[in-house]
Amino acid sequence: SIDGDRLWDSLMEMAKIGKTAKDGVCRLALTDLDRESRDLFIDWCKAEGCSIRIDKMGNIFARREGRNPDLPPVVMGSHLDSQPTGGKYDGVYGVLSGLEVIRTLNEAKYETEAPLEVVCWTNEEGSRFAPAMVASGVFAKVFDLEYGHSRADVDGKTMGEELERIGYMGPDEATIDAHPMGAYFEAHIEQGPILEDEGKDIGIVTDAQGQRWYEIKFTGVEAHAGPTPMKTRKDALLGAARVVDLVNKIGLDRSPLACATVGMMQIHPNSRNVIPGEVFFTVDFRHPDDAVLADMDKALREGVEKIAKEIGLQTELEQIFYYAPVPFDKSCVDAVRMGAELGGFSAREIVSGAGHDACYLAQVCPTAMIFIPCVDGISHNEIEEVHKHWSDAGGQVLLHAVLAKADE
Amino acid sequence: SIDGDRLWDSLMEMAKIGKTAKDGVCRLALTDLDRESRDLFIDWCKAEGCSIRIDKMGNIFARREGRNPDLPPVVMGSHLDSQPTGGKYDGVYGVLSGLEVIRTLNEAKYETEAPLEVVCWTNEEGSRFAPAMVASGVFAKVFDLEYGHSRADVDGKTMGEELERIGYMGPDEATIDAHPMGAYFEAHIEQGPILEDEGKDIGIVTDAQGQRWYEIKFTGVEAHAGPTPMKTRKDALLGAARVVDLVNKIGLDRSPLACATVGMMQIHPNSRNVIPGEVFFTVDFRHPDDAVLADMDKALREGVEKIAKEIGLQTELEQIFYYAPVPFDKSCVDAVRMGAELGGFSAREIVSGAGHDACYLAQVCPTAMIFIPCVDGISHNEIEEVHKHWSDAGGQVLLHAVLAKADE
Ligand SMILES: NC(=O)NCCC(=O)O
Ligand SMILES: NC(=O)NCCC(=O)O
Repeated sequence: SIDGDRLWDSLMEMAKIGKTAKDGVCRLALTDLDRESRDLFIDWCKAEGCSIRIDKMGNIFARREGRNPDLPPVVMGSHLDSQPTGGKYDGVYGVLSGLEVIRTLNEAKYETEAPLEVVCWTNEEGSRFAPAMVASGVFAKVFDLEYGHSRADVDGKTMGEELERIGYMGPDEATIDAHPMGAYFEAHIEQGPILEDEGKDIGIVTDAQGQRWYEIKFTGVEAHAGPTPMKTRKDALLGAARVVDLVNKIGLDRSPLACATVGMMQIHPNSRNVIPGEVFFTVDFRHPDDAVLADMDKALREGVEKIAKEIGLQTELEQIFYYAPVPFDKSCVDAVRMGAELGGFSAREIVSGAGHDACYLAQVCPTAMIFIPCVDGISHNEIEEVHKHWSDAGGQVLLHAVLAKADE
Repeated sequence: SIDGDRLWDSLMEMAKIGKTAKDGVCRLALTDLDRESRDLFIDWCKAEGCSIRIDKMGNIFARREGRNPDLPPVVMGSHLDSQPTGGKYDGVYGVLSGLEVIRTLNEAKYETEAPLEVVCWTNEEGSRFAPAMVASGVFAKVFDLEYGHSRADVDGKTMGEELERIGYMGPDEATIDAHPMGAYFEAHIEQGPILEDEGKDIGIVTDAQGQRWYEIKFTGVEAHAGPTPMKTRKDALLGAARVVDLVNKIGLDRSPLACATVGMMQIHPNSRNVIPGEVFFTVDFRHPDDAVLADMDKALREGVEKIAKEIGLQTELEQIFYYAPVPFDKSCVDAVRMGAELGGFSAREIVSGAGHDACYLAQVCPTAMIFIPCVDGISHNEIEEVHKHWSDAGGQVLLHAVLAKADE
């Protein structure tokens, strides 16, 4: 059995790095705080006798050898970066429950057949650098290395520069070809309300929703808010506002499965008495059915064109991120199900609404995920919370699932 | 006659300070660039033999003595600060046409009965520090000095601190009681399309529209854009977007005289895959009829409440700025009309859509304004433009109007 107290203590220790006033975490990818959390993770892994490998995307792999050096490792993990208003568990839970599995096996002096690894992927959140999961995407050969390094934040700093700056541009190739894996398991908080609502401790994740992310720029004419008649205005913010309402309608019309969000908006010149001349904003669409996602795409493009025409705006619209719905590997999903049964936990199958590094890994190696509930389904919020017995349960299921695969 | 070339050259010289890539001006109030423009103005005034007086709001008065030292001065002026995407004429034209009147009289060795002054008011634009015209407001006793000094920009820097920092916190009391005025004339670009559309060179400004400015904050719940069902969301940006549309409708319904604008919006946490939990935005209402303005206020408050209720948002709504429509002084308006006739310029009466320092001065001394057209009615935009013969005309009318009052 894993040591739930030890796992919890490590979660609380990690949460000190980037702690916010409201007891959340702000630890954006490749900042100094991200470096601190990486350093701490590596210290903990070294204390368990693991060897460390860092690749050119800053992904960190901590390895515990197995009996059979010819077998590819069974890998556990997730990410340590957070949203600007993030919580203590999103990502961190998957990394530290992996570490807890290794601590447990060390204590029990239990040797697995295949080697085990814990991985920490770079910039999963997609907040400082878009898109999300860019480093696991490079690793899974969805993006090339140059694309990964060139992603820039709002100040124009690139991931490549920032990896160098914080000292996490590793020497190893960042691709699965250079580092084959036998299986990948990611434990994570659900980030939605279903498990808690139904009183389940474990989600056996069978699939992940598909996603499409967009960037839209409207250009109108900035002019004085006083003497410029309403009828002659080309107000870029009015256009963006109508798209926000449209995006919401696109999601609602396809509820309960669809999600549709405008999360980011930048207004220019953003002055009280100036009609906004330029607005940049983003759209995030999700659905488990690729055909519905395509239909949402169509509704967005048609709606944006219509709104721009009404107001007389110029439009740039780009889909910057897409992946189809992801089915996870049957034998890995079965290992999770078996782990929940062995542990005697209440469980149900579930589809992930969030993107995870596991979604890219699933394209190149047998992959599954374990969800635990979070209070009120809330994450990407400083008040994100988890009951300790959920944390215990997820760690235990991870241990069972990993052993099933590593000793197969 | 004024020297139109000299006035134009001074406008172009001043426009070098804070010049933008698109040939506009970004010279926010109390920045280092604002200091540079003030220094240049003072140099030019001293070269004309003027004495300089600076008050506790950083307002600068340059004085040319008259024959009768007991008479209060006839004052001309406007402001040197700009919007983030500002032009070369908004404000600057009123200051430098005042200086041109003094240069002309000096050249002609013409002595007026009353003293003449050119004034440059601090932070007219209301962009870096809200509200607009705060320093002329203090001077006209609409606000007290403490209020003026405490206005803060988005970084929390106050006008008081910034006046000290750039060396323009003067020793003199910033009120008309300490510095009575015989009359105030402000020449300005129209910032709207009427004069150009009708082929007039001069606008005889009889009134200014009333204004109401608001700050609104919506608070919802930030949550993950993926697994948070549409129906459980409390999306603060959705609420703000609906208010943007409502504000536009409030303006359109009362067209052509009403104006209604959302110019500024800040989204929190402003991350692509997070449902916005908090949005702050501003509303700017204008109308020449105070009763209609009150009716717009009512429509806004009711609409905001309804929208917040629909989505489940908490609301803070504050009216931070109000003034009733302003009628200008009949005898000063007549002096402008007479000036336009003397100069042989085509002219019409007009209501100002923009707020001006003259609107506050009108409450405490006889005041009028002279408008010249600007190309396509566009201002608060880097492409703001003026034809030179309009600039010549405005300066000439100002000279006539001021002489009529100073030698009355
Ligand atoms: N798990 C998670 O928060 N991932 C970020 C990417 C996404 O928005 O789905
Ligand atoms: N003239 C001018 O642009 N004034 C700024 C205040 C306003 O918005 O009316």
